[in-house]
Amino acid sequence: MSALPARVRIVEVGPRDGLQNEKTMVSTADKIELVDRLTATGLQSIEATSFVSPKWIPQLADAAEVFAGITRKPGVHYPVLVPNEKGYDRAREVGVEEIAVFTAASEAFNQRNINASIDESLARFAPVLARARADGVRVRGYVSTVLGCPYQGEVPLADVVRVARELHGMGCYEISLGDTIGVGTPGKARAMLQAVAAEVPLDALAVHFHDTYGQALANILACLEVGVSVVDSAVSGAGGCPYAKGASGNVASEDVVYMLHGLGIETGVDLARLVETGHWLAGRLGRETGSRAGRALAVS
Amino acid sequence: MSALPARVRIVEVGPRDGLQNEKTMVSTADKIELVDRLTATGLQSIEATSFVSPKWIPQLADAAEVFAGITRKPGVHYPVLVPNEKGYDRAREVGVEEIAVFTAASEAFNQRNINASIDESLARFAPVLARARADGVRVRGYVSTVLGCPYQGEVPLADVVRVARELHGMGCYEISLGDTIGVGTPGKARAMLQAVAAEVPLDALAVHFHDTYGQALANILACLEVGVSVVDSAVSGAGGCPYAKGASGNVASEDVVYMLHGLGIETGVDLARLVETGHWLAGRLGRETGSRAGRALAVS
Repeated sequence: MSALPARVRIVEVGPRDGLQNEKTMVSTADKIELVDRLTATGLQSIEATSFVSPKWIPQLADAAEVFAGITRKPGVHYPVLVPNEKGYDRAREVGVEEIAVFTAASEAFNQRNINASIDESLARFAPVLARARADGVRVRGYVSTVLGCPYQGEVPLADVVRVARELHGMGCYEISLGDTIGVGTPGKARAMLQAVAAEVPLDALAVHFHDTYGQALANILACLEVGVSVVDSAVSGAGGCPYAKGASGNVASEDVVYMLHGLGIETGVDLARLVETGHWLAGRLGRETGSRAGRALAVS
Repeated sequence: MSALPARVRIVEVGPRDGLQNEKTMVSTADKIELVDRLTATGLQSIEATSFVSPKWIPQLADAAEVFAGITRKPGVHYPVLVPNEKGYDRAREVGVEEIAVFTAASEAFNQRNINASIDESLARFAPVLARARADGVRVRGYVSTVLGCPYQGEVPLADVVRVARELHGMGCYEISLGDTIGVGTPGKARAMLQAVAAEVPLDALAVHFHDTYGQALANILACLEVGVSVVDSAVSGAGGCPYAKGASGNVASEDVVYMLHGLGIETGVDLARLVETGHWLAGRLGRETGSRAGRALAVS
């Protein structure tokens, strides 16, 4: 583990990737409070919401109100998901300074999810990325299904590498590699990251794991050993009730931070405040926290 | 990850370390069925029960009936926990051929848990180990609290090493190093294992993690990288309801096997049958399985 980074930046995706996959609707005021609480933990990157059409993601239909309502702390980044120019316009109207675009490494997933091939989805981003560049807006790129696809099964590594390389070439400052369905194990995660890192600089890569099969922390450890230093996670493991059958929540930020601090890796995050926020969110979602460290630390 | 072993032996501790820590009492018939189901998965080591006094562990008061009732498959080991000569006698009466003894690396934990110092507890085992040797009975040794203690906090590595060395010297063929309260993180787990392996052969060591803070699989991965090839785990994550506050169940065997198979490591275990057994046990315990892989695979 000699290659472990000294510091890791957590990209907190609970308010977006978490809430958009929860059945329970959270009020606009609570979404704002969530982001503000997360800011108070010391997180540097908080994905605040999504400007995808409310037709597709009703949970985040109030994106503009949420973004306008949060208190942005200087130095903290608040990216929002943007699918196209219309979403970009809505985001910019409320002062968004960083966006995220998304596509999958799996052709089958892209077809089913956004009714477009990978190349068509990349073409749709081109004007958004051109405008972002002109406006000085930073763009993060997501590649999903990097370790498996619910429709096509195996996803060729070459496809993951190609999509990551294209997004980076189009101007994304960071590419988040997502195991959307959580099927990956550490050896495969490591091999995937190494393959991408051969074509995109490692310091422009992030990893994004879901804990569907309980593998997320082990996968993150394997990727830290390769040298990645940006990790996506969601407070309280938001994004799928951990007690529902087939749940597939994001890895819990509390569990990630607990591991990183135990490894002597700095995050700048106050774990106690994060745990408190996780329990607060779980209360709003009407369930227990999906974070094991969160549960353990709440009673210790 | 070049040092990963090609094959790992799982020591299934659900029927003992799992059930003794569950609030729900399981019937004798169900305990027998559990062990028989586990045998059918291909597991090679199944800790069947405990001959600790029923005064202390009422959940396993039927140890003799359980052991007498299971169908022992040739080549599979069925160790049972034995605290003293009286327990040894009870175990031998029903044909036990392998036992496990236990002590802690923490003085404070030993005092509170068994009202004896570490040295006193080792002295208590001496006659049991002498008789086991004479009878041709294999003995496994547990060292608990190797990464932290609920009473004294930090546990010096030197204490872990000393206790492991003594148990090995007294004739234990294998020493299981247990993070009883689940506080460990991968770097500490690795350092602990390396320290012990400097004085006890690595192939006589096993690791035993609880998933209290969600760290178990990452810790196991770190220990596999050191070269350990024996891992304790409990089907369904038995040993503390995963939905209760401060739960501290064993790492789920299903999650471990899923990871190992994903890493290309053989276990000889049929994961589908293990998942089925985990759901069956959860039903008997009146709760959902504590295994994430178990939940995911049950619906896929």
